[in-house]
Amino acid sequence: LPSMPTSSSKPCPCPSFKLREVASMYFTLIAVFLVILVVALQGSAPRGSDFPYKVPLDPQGLLELSWNVSYPEQAVHFQLLIRDLQFGLLFGMSDRGEFENADLAVLWSNGHNSYFGDAWSDAKGQLHMDSQQDYQLLGARRAPEGLYLLFRRAFSTCDPKDYLIEDGTVHLIYGILEKPVHSLQAINISAIHRGLQRVQLLKPNITIPELPSDMKTMEITAPDIVIPSQETTYWCYMAELPDGFPKHHIIMYEPVITVGNEALVHHMEVFQCAAEFDSFPHYNGPCDSKMKPDRLNYCRHVLAAWAMGAQAFYYPEEAGLAFGGPGSSRYLRLEIHYHNPLVFTGRRDSSGIRLYYTATLRRYDAGIMELGLVYTPVMAIPPGEDAFVLTGYCTDKCTQLALPAAGIRIFASQLHTHLAGRKVVTVLSRDGRERQVVNSDGHYSPHFQEIRMLKEVVAVFPGDELITTCTYNTEDRSRATVGGFGILEEMCVNYVHYYPQTQLELCKSAVDPGYLHRYFNLVNRFNDEEVCTCPQVSVPQQFFSIPWNTFNRDVLKSLYGFAPISMHCNKSSAVRFPGKWEKQPLPTITERLREPVPRCPPALGPQPAAPVPLNLGQLRRD
Amino acid sequence: LPSMPTSSSKPCPCPSFKLREVASMYFTLIAVFLVILVVALQGSAPRGSDFPYKVPLDPQGLLELSWNVSYPEQAVHFQLLIRDLQFGLLFGMSDRGEFENADLAVLWSNGHNSYFGDAWSDAKGQLHMDSQQDYQLLGARRAPEGLYLLFRRAFSTCDPKDYLIEDGTVHLIYGILEKPVHSLQAINISAIHRGLQRVQLLKPNITIPELPSDMKTMEITAPDIVIPSQETTYWCYMAELPDGFPKHHIIMYEPVITVGNEALVHHMEVFQCAAEFDSFPHYNGPCDSKMKPDRLNYCRHVLAAWAMGAQAFYYPEEAGLAFGGPGSSRYLRLEIHYHNPLVFTGRRDSSGIRLYYTATLRRYDAGIMELGLVYTPVMAIPPGEDAFVLTGYCTDKCTQLALPAAGIRIFASQLHTHLAGRKVVTVLSRDGRERQVVNSDGHYSPHFQEIRMLKEVVAVFPGDELITTCTYNTEDRSRATVGGFGILEEMCVNYVHYYPQTQLELCKSAVDPGYLHRYFNLVNRFNDEEVCTCPQVSVPQQFFSIPWNTFNRDVLKSLYGFAPISMHCNKSSAVRFPGKWEKQPLPTITERLREPVPRCPPALGPQPAAPVPLNLGQLRRD
Repeated sequence: LPSMPTSSSKPCPCPSFKLREVASMYFTLIAVFLVILVVALQGSAPRGSDFPYKVPLDPQGLLELSWNVSYPEQAVHFQLLIRDLQFGLLFGMSDRGEFENADLAVLWSNGHNSYFGDAWSDAKGQLHMDSQQDYQLLGARRAPEGLYLLFRRAFSTCDPKDYLIEDGTVHLIYGILEKPVHSLQAINISAIHRGLQRVQLLKPNITIPELPSDMKTMEITAPDIVIPSQETTYWCYMAELPDGFPKHHIIMYEPVITVGNEALVHHMEVFQCAAEFDSFPHYNGPCDSKMKPDRLNYCRHVLAAWAMGAQAFYYPEEAGLAFGGPGSSRYLRLEIHYHNPLVFTGRRDSSGIRLYYTATLRRYDAGIMELGLVYTPVMAIPPGEDAFVLTGYCTDKCTQLALPAAGIRIFASQLHTHLAGRKVVTVLSRDGRERQVVNSDGHYSPHFQEIRMLKEVVAVFPGDELITTCTYNTEDRSRATVGGFGILEEMCVNYVHYYPQTQLELCKSAVDPGYLHRYFNLVNRFNDEEVCTCPQVSVPQQFFSIPWNTFNRDVLKSLYGFAPISMHCNKSSAVRFPGKWEKQPLPTITERLREPVPRCPPALGPQPAAPVPLNLGQLRRD
Repeated sequence: LPSMPTSSSKPCPCPSFKLREVASMYFTLIAVFLVILVVALQGSAPRGSDFPYKVPLDPQGLLELSWNVSYPEQAVHFQLLIRDLQFGLLFGMSDRGEFENADLAVLWSNGHNSYFGDAWSDAKGQLHMDSQQDYQLLGARRAPEGLYLLFRRAFSTCDPKDYLIEDGTVHLIYGILEKPVHSLQAINISAIHRGLQRVQLLKPNITIPELPSDMKTMEITAPDIVIPSQETTYWCYMAELPDGFPKHHIIMYEPVITVGNEALVHHMEVFQCAAEFDSFPHYNGPCDSKMKPDRLNYCRHVLAAWAMGAQAFYYPEEAGLAFGGPGSSRYLRLEIHYHNPLVFTGRRDSSGIRLYYTATLRRYDAGIMELGLVYTPVMAIPPGEDAFVLTGYCTDKCTQLALPAAGIRIFASQLHTHLAGRKVVTVLSRDGRERQVVNSDGHYSPHFQEIRMLKEVVAVFPGDELITTCTYNTEDRSRATVGGFGILEEMCVNYVHYYPQTQLELCKSAVDPGYLHRYFNLVNRFNDEEVCTCPQVSVPQQFFSIPWNTFNRDVLKSLYGFAPISMHCNKSSAVRFPGKWEKQPLPTITERLREPVPRCPPALGPQPAAPVPLNLGQLRRD
């Protein structure tokens, strides 16, 4: 028989228990323990300064979320400020911001008593209490500005009803309960005031480099404009560097947001114009206006980019982004995306970006390189697909030729697709083995493209391969979506920020056009329908004429996974490095990175599936 | 602040605890609770009769496993008898019986102290203690015949290092520790005496129907033969029903195994011969002998089948399997597979099957129907594939024509492939929606083909579709594997046992040969190599001449998933039901069955990752 280890502490003399009594005692003790835990944590609840990240959830700014990320604990601590609490609210996460199949923390009140619980919504939007309570309430506190709720959520809970918090975009959802709620099940999720906010929840844990004493600042801000009373505006404003402004390094930048407009300024970018033009017209107005001078389209070199929820952006201490000096344009274009769904009128705004720069140049110039697919219609997505994958390659041959022996360091990345993009990932492969994820967003949204610092700097050496994979949804489309510049065409790009700068600006691929032609022929012969494969018809026209079925779709997938590629290993968008770049073999991958297995939090024992009662006093009744 | 629910029992007055103290108290209590639990369960440890299923693990019968299945608890209780315990043993499960990536319970001893623990082996076979202990030791007991170990394992533990116990075949592995072991890490898994046993662990929970009083028995057994001293023998023995034996119903059968040969008799089948021949020669010898009369190949209609670990087979109370009477052959063929890896010589054997039958016919004759793929080379598997999938259809059109309005009830199933088969599943679909799994084996082995009772009887109505999918591994082959009768050709078949018997004996499909021809043409034109698509060359020859690459492989997959099918909706192997059966559309599936999400056992709190010490006294030292 197993020998019985003696217990090291005996809180009570133990009478002989029956199993049922023992179990009952056990669960009671766990319940007592949990309550003590909650109370204990309240005492040490983090203060405001402990939540470095902040974002308004709704356009009026009634709900304000602050949070911090603990990588050792693998958990996020949330502080939610509810400025005008009525009968509670829903807060949660879902794959793409939908309210069905969502993972929710719910605070609800019947007017007398308030409760907090971890819930989930099914495919019909019906709410259910979660059997495992993973939004852990840490405290609730009334303040003059509103009610603060503090709670904690592990990245991964291993509960299949829960959302897995991953790197990249997280779609946060909220709903406001405006009437007394008598039970969770009584909440009609489709009838409440609700919305969506995208953030990068898992901010990287980066130590801020020391800043030089000779640092200066320059604000590129809108000149006290009136935000148009329409849901979406892209505002363009042209700024100018002083004449003869010498070369400097931008080493940091941060947003400047007009107080009160925090919920309206969605994202901002500062672009440098092309050096080939001596001057650019001044402009201050909507970017889609007919009055906007065409030449502004030549202002596309990103100097700085910010999106809601992002903080200041710091360059690594060895590098800075060159601006000013000979060979670069003095002209800058500020673009602000205003998101004004409540159509406020007359709001004035002077938001923009504050650049911190130094004349004491750092060791390396930083550079930006484009990875992914060439903008060409040969890469196409059939209609009606829920997750069609296209892959762009930066091959070993190109990195061998273009990168210095000591390699480059990628420290930030901005992912880019048009409207059908749903996921983007770039992986580094060496000797045919995938080594490291450069950047990955499994909940990518084309409406939330920010420059993201990488958690870890990625070293890329000559001979390495960078493979960028985009997943598209074309369920709402009836004809093929081809690659290109148009908003209804697609792109698959990762702009990586790296140092030291090299001549390689663009390392992208597309399928060999000859093999695509064989595909058109094959589809024509295999199916009993006429597909025009005449050479005078354009590639988009040929794609549009394909009668799409599973066979034609699958064979296109197989073609993209098999046919040789045309490489663009370019110094600038038009100048290739010397070499043979057509009909290149696809990189072979002999070993894939494993999908990370989510770590489950240490079990605290069975947790009560009952809501936690909160003492908030009586809430207002209308 | 959350209000504190009052605890219903107060074992001790509670002083004010700090968090750390509370946590320490909590874990101590859990530890105490676990020990009490182990002791408590020991008192109620199941006795021998509580383990209805039994199988020898090794060919000498030194290790004997008994078990039971608790569906309410979703757990298996094991009783392992170790007849000649040396320094411990490994017992566990893995995908296909390999010792790498295996989930193991280990009993080990250094000669003085013994330990039991849940371990896992990595891809190199190195053992590690599992952080979550899911093989739960319930007791250990010395008896004259050896040591009994009792332990429990939940079907699913949600620990990624653990094996998920599912329906179908489970590959059990064992290893014997013949030297003192000082730590788990010191075990060299490749150097120990070890082996593999396949069983259906999750036996269905079926109530045994009442048996009639006029039941008789008939034993079809080998006539005291000498088991050949070679690893594998298929023994054939011809038996005969009495002259004028009228129609009876077989309502049950069970194995008859010669005492001492339990570990050698691997599986047995009784076949009825074809009625078209008046007589069959007597034969008693190896099935692959040159002396075996050819006519025995016409004895293929299964009457009874048993494999190691299986129990008695009961027909449902409304049905029996007809045998005897006019229109059926008097001749039976018994086939016994002896597995004799230790090459014992001179072992005599009279094993076989005991049929229980009645002259009082039950309401329905039972029938056997073949589902899956037609035996034709048009269905082929490229070489070098680790998991290539082929699918055979029984279409709505065929069931509409051949099944009675009240439908049929499938109560048992025998899955069948040749050597490359790895998984088989049949799913019932109605109105384009998958409704129910008929039978599924995710760890199928061609070396372990038993008739299995279904957990739930499946009702099939006119218009339903039965879709059988087989997964093959051809990594060890250098040319295509085509469908056919040969052992190196492949089959994908599910023999379903059902009632009431209908005329439909065979409901299977294969790809339309015309579309396959288009595939050969396409491969020829797309690739820059010569593939002979001349009509005088056979389909196997055309498959053998394909230069296999990912494109040709993927397009073959796409073809099988798209091209119309030729249906065999047959009364017997040669006679089709009237109708148009060529170029039929593939069934469309609009809704798939969801993969079941494994239920995790209720957490008992963090369990110790340390081994459990066992008091077994001093073990022998060599």
